[in-house]
Order: sequence, then structure tokens, then C-alpha cells
Amino acid sequence: MALVFHERVGLLGRRISPFSWRIRYAFAHKGLAPEVVPTRFADVARIRALSGQDLVPIIEDDGRVIHDSWSIACHLEDRFPDRPSLFGGAAGRGAARLVNIWSDTMLNPAMRPQIYADFVGVIDPSDREHFRRTRETQMGMTLEQFSADRDAALPELSKACAPVERTLSEQPFLAGEAPAYIDYIIFSVFQQARIGSPRDVLHLAPDMESTRAWRSRMVALYGGLGDRFAGYPKEDT
Amino acid sequence: MALVFHERVGLLGRRISPFSWRIRYAFAHKGLAPEVVPTRFADVARIRALSGQDLVPIIEDDGRVIHDSWSIACHLEDRFPDRPSLFGGAAGRGAARLVNIWSDTMLNPAMRPQIYADFVGVIDPSDREHFRRTRETQMGMTLEQFSADRDAALPELSKACAPVERTLSEQPFLAGEAPAYIDYIIFSVFQQARIGSPRDVLHLAPDMESTRAWRSRMVALYGGLGDRFAGYPKEDT
Repeated sequence: MALVFHERVGLLGRRISPFSWRIRYAFAHKGLAPEVVPTRFADVARIRALSGQDLVPIIEDDGRVIHDSWSIACHLEDRFPDRPSLFGGAAGRGAARLVNIWSDTMLNPAMRPQIYADFVGVIDPSDREHFRRTRETQMGMTLEQFSADRDAALPELSKACAPVERTLSEQPFLAGEAPAYIDYIIFSVFQQARIGSPRDVLHLAPDMESTRAWRSRMVALYGGLGDRFAGYPKEDT
Repeated sequence: MALVFHERVGLLGRRISPFSWRIRYAFAHKGLAPEVVPTRFADVARIRALSGQDLVPIIEDDGRVIHDSWSIACHLEDRFPDRPSLFGGAAGRGAARLVNIWSDTMLNPAMRPQIYADFVGVIDPSDREHFRRTRETQMGMTLEQFSADRDAALPELSKACAPVERTLSEQPFLAGEAPAYIDYIIFSVFQQARIGSPRDVLHLAPDMESTRAWRSRMVALYGGLGDRFAGYPKEDT
């Protein structure tokens, strides 16, 4: 069995991609230890040659190449059915797809203005111009303009997170008594914020107590997986 | 086994409550046929004496009284574990709680202004004054004022529904290949709109094709359960 994980990295090995974090936790959940290939935006030629598209995460599994985090999670679940389940069955997988789409389209957009102006600082220096140019073109403004009103937007973030907060006030993990893939999806959004900005949005935004306590539990999983790599550069550079 | 289902009813037996619809579908999913006790808002004294609170659905199961649709769904799942599962396991149940909260706090509020001005017309005449007074006090405006801008608010409804629409463009049911409780949760919101207003919001709001096709599949389940009761009075009164 040859498993390879092409994972997005930033400055000095930081793990900066929410999509790669989901897959890192999925591998840990399954008890699998793939070979990791750190991948910068500048490595796009290699990624394109391998997968026919530009994005990571990508995995290779005995020569098969799978891209897109949702497809990778489904592949790992189907390929390793005897290891702990990421979805807990067919209905759980269906629901996880809804949560995945909700996170990408509702939660992530509320988080991005909170972190983007800082986030560029944890990207590999060779990637910064690419990141700034592509995002600023997409948004029609500078990263700094995009994040200018972020304190005033904190209640909006809480509003977007409210279903997560309330669920976590009623059960320890989003998947119930034990974590599963939907926890990794939502955690990845907060983990990107944690790695990519010195502002702790879960302390700044109102009514996030249960989410904050859950984040600590998520960081601690799998031997403290969430703390295995460096965080925002102010901490240690 | 004595199962009793106290179900909200409106004008001429119409089923008007999204929460009662979830439980009606949950019973059908489990293959259970409870005794149904039609319940108007005016029956609150009976409900309070039975359950210590004012809301339906309520079920009685061999003398136990359970209220709140989520608690009822969990009770049915635990009490009848050998019948088809509503959640598909522990992780699916965890995810369903998140979907339940998301539906009640994000989807339902986007739907209410679309239907409330019409909805009062499908309530039992003896309940109308109660419904109007409680809702108008809560909203600080008349039902008609609350619904006045509903055409302009249709894109907001589509935005709230977008994760559902995209999920259903990728799989036939929210729970995957077959329906389960999260389908009943979300369907109940559209079913209340369908029973409670002559405007078909799934035709009027943009980008709802997949949700519309799914709604038809949901109505057809269990021998056409979604069409077993009368709809908006313009159709047949």
C-alpha cells in the first residue's frame, strides 16, 4: 500500500489550508500514515501534471490520483471500510455532504474577512504575490480593504456559526459523542483562522463558548494533531 | 403497544405544522401507525395537563409522554431499533441534530415571511385570533406587514436554501440514496409552505430546480403521504 498526501504548506512548514486539514484529520481518524508531500502554490505545475487541475489536497493510492477533499474523504471511507468510519454509514455520509457544502458556502465566507489581511503573512514568501493577486482580483479589493471592518463583522461570524454553537452546547462533537468527518470539516475553518491570524475570533466573537471548548478538544485529538505545526508567525518567528 | 400522536391540525383537518410533519414522516419511516389526536391551538389546556408545556407534536408511548419533535424522533429511534433507522447510526444522529438546529434557525426564518400572510387562512377559525396575536406580538408588526416584501425577499430564501439545493443536485436525498430524518426536517419547512400558501415558493424563488424535484419525491413517499391531507383552501374550498 502506497499512500501519498499532497498537502498545502505555508511559511516554514505551516499547514494553512482548511481542505488539507480535513484530510489530515481523516487520515488520523483512519489510523493511516501517508507519505506527505508539502505543496506550495508555486508547485502548481507538478500538481497539474499529476491530477489535471490546480488544487490540493490530492492523494495517491496505489497509483490512483484523487483530488477534492470531499472525494478524498469518500475514497478513504470506501477503500478502508474496516477502519473507523468517517461518516458512520450511508445516511451520515449524505448529511456530511450537506454540512460540507454549508461550511464552504456559508461558514467559510463569514470567516475569510476575519483573517485574510493576516493570513498572507503565513504563506510561503514565494507564494504571497500569487495569493494576493488571485484573491484581490476575485474580491475586487485589497486584502486589507477586505478585512478593514472585521471587528464590526464579528457578530455576523457568530450568526453564521450559531447552528454549530448550539449543537455543541447539546453534544460534545458535531457527530455526537465522538468526532467524525463533519467535525473535521467545521474544525478546519477555525483551524485555518487559528494558524493564519493572531486574532482569536472564537474569543472575540460573541456567544462562542461551546465552539471554543470543542475546538480545544479537536486540537487535542490524535496526540495533539492540531498543534503539531507552527501557528501564526508572531508566536515563534 | 399504545402509541398516540398529538398532531397539530388547522382548517378542515389540514396538517399545518412543520414539526408535526417531521413526526408523521418519522412514524411512516418506522412503519408505525399511531392513534392520531388532532390538536388545535385551542386545545392547549389538554396539552398542558398532559405534558407540562403548550406545544405539539407530543407522543404517548405506553404511558410515557414525550414532547419536542427532536426528542420524539430520538425516542422512536431508540424504542424501535429493529425498524428502519431515522439517523443511520450515532454519527448520523449527531449530524441530524445540527441540521435540525440549522433548519429551525436559518431556513425557517427565511420561509416565514413568504407564507405568514396566507397561512392564517388555513388555521382553524377558532385558532386564528390566537395565531395572529401571538405572532404579531412576537414580530412587532401585522402578518401582512411581515409578508409585504416577500417577492423581493425570494432571492434571500434561495440563498438560505442554497446548501440544500446544491446537495440535492449531487444526490437524490439529503441523507444520500434513501430518505431519512434530515429529509423529513427540511421537507417539513417546504410542506408547511405548500399547505399554507397558494404561492409556490419553489417555483418563484430562483435556482431551486433540484429542491423542487426532491420535494415531489418526498410528497410521493409512503403512498403519497405529503398529499394525504387538503392543501391551501383556494384549491378545494
